Amino acid sequence: MLIVSYDISNDKVRTKFSKFLKKYGRRLQYSVFEIKNSQRILDLILVEVEKIFAKSFQNTDSILIFGMCEGCKKKVIRYGYAVNEESDLLFM
Amino acid sequence: MLIVSYDISNDKVRTKFSKFLKKYGRRLQYSVFEIKNSQRILDLILVEVEKIFAKSFQNTDSILIFGMCEGCKKKVIRYGYAVNEESDLLFM
Repeated sequence: MLIVSYDISNDKVRTKFSKFLKKYGRRLQYSVFEIKNSQRILDLILVEVEKIFAKSFQNTDSILIFGMCEGCKKKVIRYGYAVNEESDLLFM
Repeated sequence: MLIVSYDISNDKVRTKFSKFLKKYGRRLQYSVFEIKNSQRILDLILVEVEKIFAKSFQNTDSILIFGMCEGCKKKVIRYGYAVNEESDLLFM
């Protein structure tokens, strides 16, 4: 599982980025996506970020990508509103 | 390393939660914190969330806690603005 979280101040860029991520996974929070963990998809995201999104960053913008092994994936803890179906996430 | 990310719509509650997290780690993004990974701190956060914050959630609020093993921690990829010193985070 990949977790992609982002701070993108420009509305257009942020919307474009979330639409892009939606093709490869699902939204967990307002600016946090869970993405299918494959090298191909990770490479695709990295290329797209470097080619398109990083260029329009403003000075407080950032993107974080966390690769989660199966062990770490099982330890995810969530409180509150389930944005999407939660079959593989721990729900407390 | 623990990653705590949150969607909290109430300004007061959100501010209170970020101040609480700051005691145990550092802000990576607007609503994402890196927290020292110890069972004691994780337990403290879980108790505080259940005792105080989860009670004032509105229907789109949520908190996610990702436990990152050393292997996963080394694979974190970041683009853009470094909110804090980045000694142990990959910087691309």
